[in-house]
Amino acid sequence: MATLTAPAGNSPPTRRRISWISDIIVVVSPEKIETMKSIIEKYGHKRVTVVKGGVTRHRSIFNGLKVFTENEFSNHLLQKPEVVIIHDAVRPFVEEDILSKVVMAAKEHGAAGAIRPLVSTVIASAADGCLDHSLERAKYRASEMPQAFLFDIIYEAYQQCTDYDLDYGTECLHLALKYCKTNAKLVEGTADLWKVTYKRDLYAAESIIKDNLSQQVCVITDVKEAAAQVGFLLHESLKSQIRVESISVSLSNNDSHLQSVISGQCYNFVCINDKNHAVQETQQVVDMLEKSNIPLLYPVVLILVLLDISENISFSIGMEELSRIKKFAREVKNENILVYGLLIQYKDHLLLQDTVNSAAALILALIKDRNPELVGQLLVA
Amino acid sequence: MATLTAPAGNSPPTRRRISWISDIIVVVSPEKIETMKSIIEKYGHKRVTVVKGGVTRHRSIFNGLKVFTENEFSNHLLQKPEVVIIHDAVRPFVEEDILSKVVMAAKEHGAAGAIRPLVSTVIASAADGCLDHSLERAKYRASEMPQAFLFDIIYEAYQQCTDYDLDYGTECLHLALKYCKTNAKLVEGTADLWKVTYKRDLYAAESIIKDNLSQQVCVITDVKEAAAQVGFLLHESLKSQIRVESISVSLSNNDSHLQSVISGQCYNFVCINDKNHAVQETQQVVDMLEKSNIPLLYPVVLILVLLDISENISFSIGMEELSRIKKFAREVKNENILVYGLLIQYKDHLLLQDTVNSAAALILALIKDRNPELVGQLLVA
Repeated sequence: MATLTAPAGNSPPTRRRISWISDIIVVVSPEKIETMKSIIEKYGHKRVTVVKGGVTRHRSIFNGLKVFTENEFSNHLLQKPEVVIIHDAVRPFVEEDILSKVVMAAKEHGAAGAIRPLVSTVIASAADGCLDHSLERAKYRASEMPQAFLFDIIYEAYQQCTDYDLDYGTECLHLALKYCKTNAKLVEGTADLWKVTYKRDLYAAESIIKDNLSQQVCVITDVKEAAAQVGFLLHESLKSQIRVESISVSLSNNDSHLQSVISGQCYNFVCINDKNHAVQETQQVVDMLEKSNIPLLYPVVLILVLLDISENISFSIGMEELSRIKKFAREVKNENILVYGLLIQYKDHLLLQDTVNSAAALILALIKDRNPELVGQLLVA
Repeated sequence: MATLTAPAGNSPPTRRRISWISDIIVVVSPEKIETMKSIIEKYGHKRVTVVKGGVTRHRSIFNGLKVFTENEFSNHLLQKPEVVIIHDAVRPFVEEDILSKVVMAAKEHGAAGAIRPLVSTVIASAADGCLDHSLERAKYRASEMPQAFLFDIIYEAYQQCTDYDLDYGTECLHLALKYCKTNAKLVEGTADLWKVTYKRDLYAAESIIKDNLSQQVCVITDVKEAAAQVGFLLHESLKSQIRVESISVSLSNNDSHLQSVISGQCYNFVCINDKNHAVQETQQVVDMLEKSNIPLLYPVVLILVLLDISENISFSIGMEELSRIKKFAREVKNENILVYGLLIQYKDHLLLQDTVNSAAALILALIKDRNPELVGQLLVA
């Protein structure tokens, strides 16, 4: 199995997400090859071969396929796959399910492609810029990616097709039909397969990624009594809106449960500490995160909850304390960890529940926004 | 001129945005009529008639047109327009320019509609779920809204058309062609005409609205020396990224310049004050905003910049001060005004420029996010 894909600006890296894909061929325009190679190296992607693109879509795909048959495009010939998936990198949210569906269908039918219902009616215009006719929407579908083919069929189609096809065509399913008499199986895809095309699509993609990163939070509490109580209340207040993993830990030990949460792709952490040791204790979580490579892919949110347990009524926050959090946040921001401070006053037990609810709302807002400009700020619940 | 539109959940209100439209007919499903009427009343929309929708798109549009010809749909018969625009409320970002283009084209050709290039290839499927044929993408277009018609043509088309058309058709241009032999003029629309259909489209729409609201900020400075200096530096630091209107004002007077900025649809305000009088002085800006009705349409961001000019090195923020800002923010949040605090230390003149730059970055982040959960917080530049 191999996948051909063209890169998009902000597509999230795949990183061995799907084990049954043996090779990934990324076709890139010549001037972007070095950038692409540095991205692949930075994110530690394996199985990836970068190939120079052509001047049109079809010529680029053809170049990608040649990696398996011609020596000129690669130092070492990759083993020819039975099935090849063709995908656009402008559709970054492709799931394993649809990939596996088009592959199974391609094995049976020779070719297969994802489709979606049409959102607008399609019309043909006459030479004078007026309506010629409109198509009945229910009879047509939008052809999307991914598509999959028996390698021999799509490669044969590209070898047979004309220069006109290569220069003006856009549809691989059409080539398989025209040159190999293969009627592709059409597979209903999900809405997430849409093409990131306009600025608004970048906004949508960013929001979807942020949504995906905001599904789970890990609350790490100090073993001391006050922290444990606030941790418990916070867990209760958060759990109706987000999956919460709570860990009670003395951070001086290397905690294996915490290790497993970190390696389990959690992107949000809340550390509840006594006000005076917050930064030092959190440093250990930062160290674990850095070792895990988790912040390499997406920004990790780390919220320092400072408990103020002093009896002093006219409590105040000193500038030195603020500076310490700011300095810490600035340092770890370079590691793609976003640190925010959150103060909870643990004085009036009657008001504690209200304060914790307000803290939970702030935590959810910080997690959802992941705003890099606000790191190092101390919010007050 | 009249417009027919179906409501969408989050479409921004129009409020006499386009003066040459005489009537707006909103076609709504029967169970939503009361909600729609309360929305129209809340936002003070004029020229709007609400009409009960039918079970299909075409039946709803036909109901809307009948407002001009039949008494049963309205208490008073509206004057029949020469041209009618048909629009979907799921396309909230329609601009006057495209409306005026389709109207002019409809006057000449009898019918006109906005089109966009196809983003995906369109295919026809056979009965077995396999590809039958694909359309050459360059020859087809997506038919979008708005569309405009000579009233007599589209009304005639709806009167003539069959029940099958009314139940299964979706394209008004098709009816004008089939029943009135009118080949609609096709007008290239902008990307913003897309249909808000999926969850991702709501994300995109929200980001576009926030972007539109973040184009301009008004910086209001106290006349005192320190505030004026910080105001000047802040203006310089902000102006590379956002349009800045600076007003130096003694707020006790009713300032006409400030009045004109507020009525000029500015949605972002920064008030620079001495730390001790921040809340009282800002209250006057809030009063002006409330009188202006501006916060009715979109949330207004109001950032209280507190200058700390004390010589005391170990400065601290007292809880009472924080509580005062929080209480104030909570009160005005009900008026759709989002208040955030921002502390600038005015001590070390050498560091002032850095502090102001950091304040500018925070101001821009608060304006872009408009996060209602963070109101009442005091950020430190």
